[in-house]
Amino acid sequence: MTIHFHREIELLKKKVLSLSARVEETVYQAVQSIDKRDAVLAGKVIHSDMDINKTEIDVEEDCLKILALYKPVAVDLRFIVAVLKINYDLERIGDLAANIAERTIDLLNCQRTPFPYNFNSMAEKTLWMLQKSLDALMNMDMQSAKLVLSKDDEVDEINRDMYDEVKKHMREHPESMDQWVHHLCISRHLERIADHAVNIAEDVIYMCEGKIVRHEPREKNQIYDESIRADK
Amino acid sequence: MTIHFHREIELLKKKVLSLSARVEETVYQAVQSIDKRDAVLAGKVIHSDMDINKTEIDVEEDCLKILALYKPVAVDLRFIVAVLKINYDLERIGDLAANIAERTIDLLNCQRTPFPYNFNSMAEKTLWMLQKSLDALMNMDMQSAKLVLSKDDEVDEINRDMYDEVKKHMREHPESMDQWVHHLCISRHLERIADHAVNIAEDVIYMCEGKIVRHEPREKNQIYDESIRADK
Repeated sequence: MTIHFHREIELLKKKVLSLSARVEETVYQAVQSIDKRDAVLAGKVIHSDMDINKTEIDVEEDCLKILALYKPVAVDLRFIVAVLKINYDLERIGDLAANIAERTIDLLNCQRTPFPYNFNSMAEKTLWMLQKSLDALMNMDMQSAKLVLSKDDEVDEINRDMYDEVKKHMREHPESMDQWVHHLCISRHLERIADHAVNIAEDVIYMCEGKIVRHEPREKNQIYDESIRADK
Repeated sequence: MTIHFHREIELLKKKVLSLSARVEETVYQAVQSIDKRDAVLAGKVIHSDMDINKTEIDVEEDCLKILALYKPVAVDLRFIVAVLKINYDLERIGDLAANIAERTIDLLNCQRTPFPYNFNSMAEKTLWMLQKSLDALMNMDMQSAKLVLSKDDEVDEINRDMYDEVKKHMREHPESMDQWVHHLCISRHLERIADHAVNIAEDVIYMCEGKIVRHEPREKNQIYDESIRADK
């Protein structure tokens, strides 16, 4: 049974890693589709989301099968529960990438206007967080996971500044209102992808050390470390 | 062991039901705080979110304990996995209620302007979906769960119309830009609460009949029924 169990776990890991690579690529393509005003690429992202949804169901069924057949305990049980949660986050990231791609198509019907905030910087930071959280998952690397947590404030800060900039542009150029609302939504989608990357990183930490770190306070721009105090 | 197991399951059920009642009350208060411009109530909602976060961790730890100690199979295993996911949804709904309450406080710094869309109708429908999904959970009632799925399109439609209305008001009254952006965000938060209610309803269906219904297409305003075809 142990051999079968380890084989099942390895297969599950491979499926999650392949799903995470697919999700990462989809977010990258969504960002590229905005930058290049590329409707074909946007369509590809929207199509990918359907495959991601099917894989999510597949992974969940595998987890249930492993729980029922092998009744794992300790670190193996924690791994399966973390996979169930990461799976959910990956599926939601796929949805958000599709939402961004839909905005690419909407923006093609509008005149081109520059982003009223630093879209490239926000997209880069979000992609960096997503990649790092998935690297952390792939290598069970706590250091990478903690780096992701430390970066989240930067994306939140850009998102906050973005609101002020968008409102300013809405007042000054109300004739481009559609574009500003699309830009605002894209920023919100990116910020939520960053939040899901944080969830994944927290689950990797939980897998590695069995410690639940979500809802704990984090100091701005500071590498998350063991000395951090719980929020109670 | 069976007696202990059933006792643990009953205790877990009670904890989840008490969490869900708390979350439902919090969303209701968040909506009331907007309607009454009540900063004290908004503060209460934000404070509640911290308690909800703590209970979420508690419930997850209980699930892990039950999985490790009793190694449930079949319907019991499905129940625990569904609780793990519903727990996540409840925690996210608590966050969104807190986000709405933060907007109440922001709106107090602005002149009072009427909502540019039917806020009361959207709030009522969202609260109805949340209540029904939690009733479905409490009574393991598939009919209630299916009613929730059939209602989701209505909230999505209000949310879509809302964008057009908000953009119109932004063009016509740019001097109230802050208010319009707050209104837009509140509508998005309500729509996401409705999405989480749908997730909960889908998990209740999954608990009752072991069938994963998410990502399946639903016909607009039609009671979800068994004849629906999978999205593949």
